[in-house]
Amino acid sequence: MMRTVYVNGNYVPENEASVSIFDRAFLFADGVYEVTSVLDGKLIDFHGHIARLERSLKELGINYPVDKDALLEIHRELIRKNDLVEGMIYLQVSRGAAADRDFMFPSADVKPTIVLFTQSKSLVKSPAAERGLKVASFPDQRWRRCDIKTVQLLYSSLVKNEAAKKGADDAWLVLDGKVTEGSSNNAYIVDENNTIITRELSNDILHGITRKAILQCAAELDLKVEERAFSIAEAQKAKEAFITSASSFVYPVIEIDGAKIGDGVPGPIAKRLREIYIEANRAAAI
Amino acid sequence: MMRTVYVNGNYVPENEASVSIFDRAFLFADGVYEVTSVLDGKLIDFHGHIARLERSLKELGINYPVDKDALLEIHRELIRKNDLVEGMIYLQVSRGAAADRDFMFPSADVKPTIVLFTQSKSLVKSPAAERGLKVASFPDQRWRRCDIKTVQLLYSSLVKNEAAKKGADDAWLVLDGKVTEGSSNNAYIVDENNTIITRELSNDILHGITRKAILQCAAELDLKVEERAFSIAEAQKAKEAFITSASSFVYPVIEIDGAKIGDGVPGPIAKRLREIYIEANRAAAI
Repeated sequence: MMRTVYVNGNYVPENEASVSIFDRAFLFADGVYEVTSVLDGKLIDFHGHIARLERSLKELGINYPVDKDALLEIHRELIRKNDLVEGMIYLQVSRGAAADRDFMFPSADVKPTIVLFTQSKSLVKSPAAERGLKVASFPDQRWRRCDIKTVQLLYSSLVKNEAAKKGADDAWLVLDGKVTEGSSNNAYIVDENNTIITRELSNDILHGITRKAILQCAAELDLKVEERAFSIAEAQKAKEAFITSASSFVYPVIEIDGAKIGDGVPGPIAKRLREIYIEANRAAAI
Repeated sequence: MMRTVYVNGNYVPENEASVSIFDRAFLFADGVYEVTSVLDGKLIDFHGHIARLERSLKELGINYPVDKDALLEIHRELIRKNDLVEGMIYLQVSRGAAADRDFMFPSADVKPTIVLFTQSKSLVKSPAAERGLKVASFPDQRWRRCDIKTVQLLYSSLVKNEAAKKGADDAWLVLDGKVTEGSSNNAYIVDENNTIITRELSNDILHGITRKAILQCAAELDLKVEERAFSIAEAQKAKEAFITSASSFVYPVIEIDGAKIGDGVPGPIAKRLREIYIEANRAAAI
């Protein structure tokens, strides 16, 4: 099915959706994005994603393109126009297309570019969730403001492809001997006392919307959480490991750099967190 | 004047020049670029820029979009169509527009996107060269493969804007206490023995085409060159400082973080290097 996508106020067929070659996302990676999941045709944690979008834009000094109510309506209109039942809505805002290429920001009358499109995908029934992921580690060579959700995703894309070459499903990134996060998700391990360990928030990782929700789910299950960095060696000795992101919810990790985690099958805590995350967020979807 | 630009085989008016929203440069910063200067309607060091483009593409596994002869002809056609006498030609190649957003590279039948456009600018007569630049230092927070000339330029753009807020003309970046390079240029100092000091080539800096040419000019002037890292403190005590890039050639630096360099006016070595660079490259332009 040909998708209808949204570009700067217009709903257009996906094969006609374009931006100027002078758009600053195209020339300078000067843009930010969000991915909001859809279950039963409704948006998961929409307000969390919009709050993070606002933060990203503020950190970079990009103007807000449309107000929050209008953004919600665009999301809903895309769901309707594309008959989206389950999947994601991708939203990108860039600093806009200036008259010419210039490292200096354009004048305030240049409007931000806003693009949204849908991606249909089975999220609840997921082979990756059933089977668990194998991950491979790579040095974290990204820029040092990973808390801002920019489109500077080249390194994440490169390591995901390198991981696949090694027979792994995804990449975990390591900075100064400790895991920062996955290539497009937050990383967790579970120790022998069922304590969930995940790196503390800083400029080194994305402040995951799903991360926040999962830590709330953990609290509801009376699981202790330690927010601190861990090494690949510690992760390989963990009882369980998993990742979270808006589009994967929770995926168990069953192997890291060739070493099996626990019994080498998805662990019960990751499974349980996934279940209650889906249940709670399906109920709260708007 | 409305420019004619080049997009994927077509010469089009600049206000109609667009790329798909699924272009990987727009979504993932998955693209590389070159800027070749033009003097007297001819290209400066074209083969050097194309050799670096080939290296960037190879490092990222992006296919070469058109052959070298065709690239030269496109550059020349843009010069003709836009009556360009002095300025730059910007060339960008991305991994192309896949059918959907995916961190995994698209299949080999997805063609790279190629975009070129002209920028008219007085390069030889330059107020910046006459006056010299004030620079401000910032931590180098870019990704760790700055040897690949990718469009991940957000941080460079941010610090150039921050430098301007501080009353400076440009930014120098500092990693582990030592200067890597300028925001879009290579950085040099001159010590009391007239030795030129510039950071050695590595993944931490761009392998400047103009840098290479300037080091050859220095050899012709019998100036000693030391390729090693230096600190801001050492730079502030230098006799001279300067930057080089394809579009600036050589600009003297007269102030670093508020400290005057030498007498606070453009130094004779930077001036002389600029003169012989322009003379030699004007003669060799194609």
